[in-house]
Amino acid sequence: MTSITAIRVHDVRFPTSLTMDGSDAMNKDGDYSAAYVVIETDEPGLSGYGFTFTIGRGNDLCVEAARQRGIPLIGRRVRDVVGDLGGTYRELASDSQLRWLGPEKGVVHLALAAVMNAVWDLAARRAGKPLWRLLADMTPEELVDVADLRYLSDALTRDEALEMLAEMEPTRKRRIAELELRGGYPCYTTSAGWLGYSDDKLRRLLQEAVDEGYRHVKLKVGADIDDDVRRLRIAREVIGWDAALMIDANQVWDVPEAIEWIGRLAEFKPMWIEEPTSPDDVLGHAAIRKAVAPIGVATGEHGMNRVLFKQMFQAEAIDYCQLDSARLASINEILAVYLMAKKFGVPVCPHAGGVGLCELVQHLSIFDYVAISGTLENRVTEYVDHLHEHFVDPCIIRNGNYVLPNAPGYSAEMFEESVREYSFPNGSHWVSSAAIEGLALEASVH
Amino acid sequence: MTSITAIRVHDVRFPTSLTMDGSDAMNKDGDYSAAYVVIETDEPGLSGYGFTFTIGRGNDLCVEAARQRGIPLIGRRVRDVVGDLGGTYRELASDSQLRWLGPEKGVVHLALAAVMNAVWDLAARRAGKPLWRLLADMTPEELVDVADLRYLSDALTRDEALEMLAEMEPTRKRRIAELELRGGYPCYTTSAGWLGYSDDKLRRLLQEAVDEGYRHVKLKVGADIDDDVRRLRIAREVIGWDAALMIDANQVWDVPEAIEWIGRLAEFKPMWIEEPTSPDDVLGHAAIRKAVAPIGVATGEHGMNRVLFKQMFQAEAIDYCQLDSARLASINEILAVYLMAKKFGVPVCPHAGGVGLCELVQHLSIFDYVAISGTLENRVTEYVDHLHEHFVDPCIIRNGNYVLPNAPGYSAEMFEESVREYSFPNGSHWVSSAAIEGLALEASVH
Repeated sequence: MTSITAIRVHDVRFPTSLTMDGSDAMNKDGDYSAAYVVIETDEPGLSGYGFTFTIGRGNDLCVEAARQRGIPLIGRRVRDVVGDLGGTYRELASDSQLRWLGPEKGVVHLALAAVMNAVWDLAARRAGKPLWRLLADMTPEELVDVADLRYLSDALTRDEALEMLAEMEPTRKRRIAELELRGGYPCYTTSAGWLGYSDDKLRRLLQEAVDEGYRHVKLKVGADIDDDVRRLRIAREVIGWDAALMIDANQVWDVPEAIEWIGRLAEFKPMWIEEPTSPDDVLGHAAIRKAVAPIGVATGEHGMNRVLFKQMFQAEAIDYCQLDSARLASINEILAVYLMAKKFGVPVCPHAGGVGLCELVQHLSIFDYVAISGTLENRVTEYVDHLHEHFVDPCIIRNGNYVLPNAPGYSAEMFEESVREYSFPNGSHWVSSAAIEGLALEASVH
Repeated sequence: MTSITAIRVHDVRFPTSLTMDGSDAMNKDGDYSAAYVVIETDEPGLSGYGFTFTIGRGNDLCVEAARQRGIPLIGRRVRDVVGDLGGTYRELASDSQLRWLGPEKGVVHLALAAVMNAVWDLAARRAGKPLWRLLADMTPEELVDVADLRYLSDALTRDEALEMLAEMEPTRKRRIAELELRGGYPCYTTSAGWLGYSDDKLRRLLQEAVDEGYRHVKLKVGADIDDDVRRLRIAREVIGWDAALMIDANQVWDVPEAIEWIGRLAEFKPMWIEEPTSPDDVLGHAAIRKAVAPIGVATGEHGMNRVLFKQMFQAEAIDYCQLDSARLASINEILAVYLMAKKFGVPVCPHAGGVGLCELVQHLSIFDYVAISGTLENRVTEYVDHLHEHFVDPCIIRNGNYVLPNAPGYSAEMFEESVREYSFPNGSHWVSSAAIEGLALEASVH
């Protein structure tokens, strides 16, 4: 009888602020970080790995919250925990004292995501399947049983969810074969477009993206309108007018300001404007969408929970749903959002980048195509080219596609050496002199 | 030159779960707790006190988050910090790495509330005024300068806010005199209605409330419809049909379920149904409100930030705004919500109870009447009769009114002895044998 013997949570931080990777109008100096959960068992070689993603300070809060979230699992039989993934989720989510601190948002929700991501990884490893395949092998009833449909019945009933899944079930295998044949699931790159990059670096990285086969690129905007116009002009010069250009404001604008600013960038024909305003503002996104059409509105990387997405769909506020695999409470909540998106006809283009988010979202997009949406139309999943070297089973990109992962699990495992080196504050990286300089820089921000 | 020398944050927890005080359909066993902030200065006798409120586990997360939020204040001149309360707020709120963990919600936002509550307390103490008076002595320009209006301009512009405040300014003094004459600001009591209380205790406490002069009482509902019907019948027998009866479901229902359940309780003519569903569900509240009229819809104790309230107003989703003084980021954000409520014609009836929330909200309601709303119509502020003995300047209730507080500050200071005794886990209460039993009970919940 295999049991869970321990939950270890690590505070892993990478010093990305030193190179301005990830710099945007709201987040100028992030140190991409993970509250990294390892579920240990007494079966040799069987562990579960998961995380939530943060950008530095406060990662320790998620680490401690994940530790508290995970306590009920210690000593449980693995068979019981992964044999009832809906029940496990509901039990961890139902702690009413921790719930008060959200509810279902912020640090305690990020922590639930981290722990349940590790539980799902454990389930997939135990089954010997990559996570997308574990999900694709579940019946519609099994999928609906693990989905968190609470507070959603005015938008999506259990029966509607079952019906949508059942309709796609007979043809799942065909779509898996199709994805393999076409080389994977389409992605776009944000690697070129960080605000902190010079025009020369921007031009060079955009050219590289085109050369690598990308048909979609994304640029950060929103700090300075003249800079934005100049950078978008460069982008169109390099990628031409057939490729898709997305822009991302990272929540810097009020609603009227967003409408005005986007209007000044319309000549560059962006496919979408991402995070034009507060991620909580359903009605604001709806107003912006109405005003800037045919430019699409996209948001979701800070979409706190399924209730927020329900309203985004009900209010027809978004053209693209960018759910986040480490902010929503793992597959249980993500499934609910995918099912609503299907019903409301909104394509899901998951947020990725950060630390390990690309590793997770490939599983989600593949499963979505196979079992829920059944289409690639208007769908493209984010890819950012950094920090993959720390993962045991990193995502593989070829010709602008995520290649289908084969290894068992959710691809969330980091190399032990990476965890050791970048553990904060006592990992070897952070005690070195370069890191001390980084900390001095960080302290000077205050 | 007085400077801030330290920020100390205490994890204070009261074992309220032992007596079922505070039990409702969602929160069955809360231990009312505070992440309690003390801003120390080098001027003898001058400190600032503030807190956020939680219900037990995870209070430590808020304590650590408040410690991190407060770091930038250490070493600053008190004059600079309290002389620019808008700038102080914006600086603490703008940490982009901590922002990622919300943004503006959950643990990091509760922590900002705790620290800024202490800053406002410090400002009022230094001025030698109770907080409501400090606010009532500020000009419209000064008030708008400290208010956080970001993301609100599609609902409320700076000029509109100024105009509303300017209109009420000449008559502020008259309304202060009126409040003093009528004995204070009207309140209602929730002390009678916790779900965990027996029918006999309910009947006795309701009779006591009537005898003490309350014209409004509130009962928890939502666990069992037959229990609800029986308890509301008892309530009407005791308080009659002229007094107001409010009911509170603490988020247990989906939208369709809420509409059906409230329909079955309509015969008892509740004045409002509080928290019928997820606090995040603006459109859900709007749908419920439409369906259950003339029963009013109230929510806000879990209203995460001003953007949520903006939408509640825009969507005409609520009849009563129950903002929370320890969940919104102190006066800076609360002011913005009051100003929007005024523009949209929604009465603000703040959430209270917990630990020390009554001590805070009396200042808010009094200031609202004096400088913003100018009316008591449909307005009544929550009062719960426990844990006041731990506060140095506890609120005083007479004949169902909050008596105007006189002592300088925000009434947030706890007795040092209470802080020591109930500090978790090493305070004398928690190391005593009774507490160990309580912890065993708590552990058995998992």
